[in-house]
Amino acid sequence: MRSLFFLFIVHLLALGSGKAVFKNGVSQRTFREIKEEIANYEDVAKAIINLAVYGKYQNRSYERLGLLVDTVGPRLSGSKNLEKAIQIMYQNLQQDGLENVHLEQVRIPHWERGEESAVMLEPRIHKMAILGLGSSIGTPPGGITAEVLVVASFDELQRRASEARGKIIVYNQPYTGYEKTVQYRVQGAVEAAKVGAVASLIQSVASFSIYSPHTGIQKYQDGVPKIPTACITVEDAEMMSRMASRGNKIVIHLEMGAKTYPDTDSFNTVAEITGSMYPEEVVLVSGHLDSWDVGQGALDDGGGAFISWEALSLVKDLGLRPKRTLRLVLWTAEEQGGIGASQYYELHKANISKYSLVMEADSGTFLPTGLQFTGSDKARAIMKEVMNLLQPLNVTKVFSNGEGTDINFWIQAGVPGASLRDDLYKYFFFHHSHGDTMTVMDPKQMNVAAAVWAVVAYVVADMDEMLPRS
Amino acid sequence: MRSLFFLFIVHLLALGSGKAVFKNGVSQRTFREIKEEIANYEDVAKAIINLAVYGKYQNRSYERLGLLVDTVGPRLSGSKNLEKAIQIMYQNLQQDGLENVHLEQVRIPHWERGEESAVMLEPRIHKMAILGLGSSIGTPPGGITAEVLVVASFDELQRRASEARGKIIVYNQPYTGYEKTVQYRVQGAVEAAKVGAVASLIQSVASFSIYSPHTGIQKYQDGVPKIPTACITVEDAEMMSRMASRGNKIVIHLEMGAKTYPDTDSFNTVAEITGSMYPEEVVLVSGHLDSWDVGQGALDDGGGAFISWEALSLVKDLGLRPKRTLRLVLWTAEEQGGIGASQYYELHKANISKYSLVMEADSGTFLPTGLQFTGSDKARAIMKEVMNLLQPLNVTKVFSNGEGTDINFWIQAGVPGASLRDDLYKYFFFHHSHGDTMTVMDPKQMNVAAAVWAVVAYVVADMDEMLPRS
Repeated sequence: MRSLFFLFIVHLLALGSGKAVFKNGVSQRTFREIKEEIANYEDVAKAIINLAVYGKYQNRSYERLGLLVDTVGPRLSGSKNLEKAIQIMYQNLQQDGLENVHLEQVRIPHWERGEESAVMLEPRIHKMAILGLGSSIGTPPGGITAEVLVVASFDELQRRASEARGKIIVYNQPYTGYEKTVQYRVQGAVEAAKVGAVASLIQSVASFSIYSPHTGIQKYQDGVPKIPTACITVEDAEMMSRMASRGNKIVIHLEMGAKTYPDTDSFNTVAEITGSMYPEEVVLVSGHLDSWDVGQGALDDGGGAFISWEALSLVKDLGLRPKRTLRLVLWTAEEQGGIGASQYYELHKANISKYSLVMEADSGTFLPTGLQFTGSDKARAIMKEVMNLLQPLNVTKVFSNGEGTDINFWIQAGVPGASLRDDLYKYFFFHHSHGDTMTVMDPKQMNVAAAVWAVVAYVVADMDEMLPRS
Repeated sequence: MRSLFFLFIVHLLALGSGKAVFKNGVSQRTFREIKEEIANYEDVAKAIINLAVYGKYQNRSYERLGLLVDTVGPRLSGSKNLEKAIQIMYQNLQQDGLENVHLEQVRIPHWERGEESAVMLEPRIHKMAILGLGSSIGTPPGGITAEVLVVASFDELQRRASEARGKIIVYNQPYTGYEKTVQYRVQGAVEAAKVGAVASLIQSVASFSIYSPHTGIQKYQDGVPKIPTACITVEDAEMMSRMASRGNKIVIHLEMGAKTYPDTDSFNTVAEITGSMYPEEVVLVSGHLDSWDVGQGALDDGGGAFISWEALSLVKDLGLRPKRTLRLVLWTAEEQGGIGASQYYELHKANISKYSLVMEADSGTFLPTGLQFTGSDKARAIMKEVMNLLQPLNVTKVFSNGEGTDINFWIQAGVPGASLRDDLYKYFFFHHSHGDTMTVMDPKQMNVAAAVWAVVAYVVADMDEMLPRS
């Protein structure tokens, strides 16, 4: 109780430390005043850090996450698992004592991979691990048997377009970072179909492999025939490339039972700590609850969703109530292209002027190295001061490129956005693979991530003024 | 030609540099004389290094290995693949111009895993990746459905023996290094059967996992019922441990088509560079050609086998002929417990006094950190001088514990033994898994490994005296 009383006093001090002075809608406060205001949160930040990292709630986000993902498993858009997880989270957030807990209905895609297999028939029999790509069609009954054309790039595919007709295209593109390499997963089938291929198999987009296929969304294009497409392992793609370079004829038999069903109902899951002074103003804290249908969706994005929940829990447990509303959103159907978030944006964008900051953690919750931020120079300067409050954790850096599939709608419309930065190289060991499980999650690292997330969210929500957009 | 002539001169100098002086079978040479003798190999060592690492044969062992394992695939004891690989290697070694190329027939086990699957039925449906363990029996037709008892150790199994009857034992032992942890794979079924279990599933013995099961041999015990046994992923073992700790009832349906067939004929593959002065004396250089039936057996032990071949190739290509015979042996059925090597030992042990050094590379051919060596202090001092010749590669360390399943028969009988040391932690990422492929092999690292292997083998084979055993 003593610590709570202490925090109450600190909170009052923080409340009184600044003043919102506007002239024609532009703050008239000096940066020095803002800096002082933020520095006054030092004790609040320490209290959050202590509770999250050293105190009674250390490891809570890890334990909560483990219980959900062990119980439900992976949570693909359109699946019963996802809706079960949403219902459990709805109960969890209510039981946690958060406010305004509710579900916002959206329509989401329903695709299932069904049974799938790929066997190399020539130059030798070899059963290959595959994962069909999200939205792919299946093969005709009996599957497809075709010769393979291995290419290392879209350029090579163009150069060898005359060899592609009737073939299965194997993309053996090198991994040169996710953003660049993922184009092969997303567009590989379309580019292959344009030159007459009957299917495409893409080297998994991964920074490291132990014969692990990595799935993900792919996109067909109007006017281009739809062909079945799956990812294969780095190992098999490289092997077929070596075989082709030796002049071996490669033949694969591919069977995919993938099918798209009618869209289904789902929900973005929302909970709040309502703001004390400006309840209509919002700091949005988020992760997505859906995942791919392999592994447990612990890393992508269970961790991000659960440190976001943890951020609100920590604020609540410390008896804090920021001036603005802290809104937790657990998105649905992120993996299909931010489907839940897109509908949320359409529903709420009329209030865009009230969003001070949108946050999403969707790149892992390993030990954070800092915060990625998109916003004006003034806002960035403020975020640097906020991150200084995390000196006790030695996580103070502010990087560029605050982003997230689900928050980009807002960021592109001018709202400041923040995302958590950690070891992305390691993240793509596991991303969208059977290896996305609790085994890769580290409770101590999640504690730190949650503390960073909570301090940023709380302080920005509680400052006298919203983050400036210019 | 100039370099070969130069080497010929160097070789003559080396030949004349020392003299074998024995009294009652014990060398009378001073260590200083031996040290000088070894130092005279500096130019030979540099020539080997240059040819292997920088010269025209750089990447040769990698390319040769890739061709074999891409063509043949994995090479399980008793399989057609293994015998095909042996026949290819027999031709390869002849075509390479090595001497006395021949096959030595042995009898080896023939076990096949057949179709296998495991599905967790409770607390939720979850299809698990498994790999049956070598020599395991299969399940009865229709499989086994049973409740799970998760234990973290043999001690816990003993304490909870009364709960084990009729259950499937899941071993969730932590990985504390291969030698210790592999006991669970080898003895897990026996210990489980002793307390009445119907099957055992063992957390894969691996230093890191991306949902990758790792197989390997297991051993039944006379008088203890045989029960089916397989490895599961680290991820699933840990998940079931968490579930059990929450009080969840876990039920698994296990089907394994594993079956042991009658022993079959196979061969150790032998090639030599016959010694110029003491052809009956031998430095044995080896790796094993067989592998498990998953992945490509590139790391275990394609790399070791192929740098051993490369060592002889390099010596031959430089026109060198050591005083003693360099004998390459590519063992068969190592994975079943050194079956080929055991029969080789029985056949050749009468000549044990003629074996100066037995070498096996079977722990990876990543960048070597040095040589592991077992032998007398005098022999160790000599090996340190030999390894000094590898200063140009900065790989000069001599560690303890020279060993290898296939050479331990000789080492235990007193013959000095050497093995290659590299990053064992990384080795056990891939060991016995689908991930043991060419993707994990690095041509430049194999070049260095081959150079180290060749220098050690050649110099020890060419020195005036055999390595002292006391």
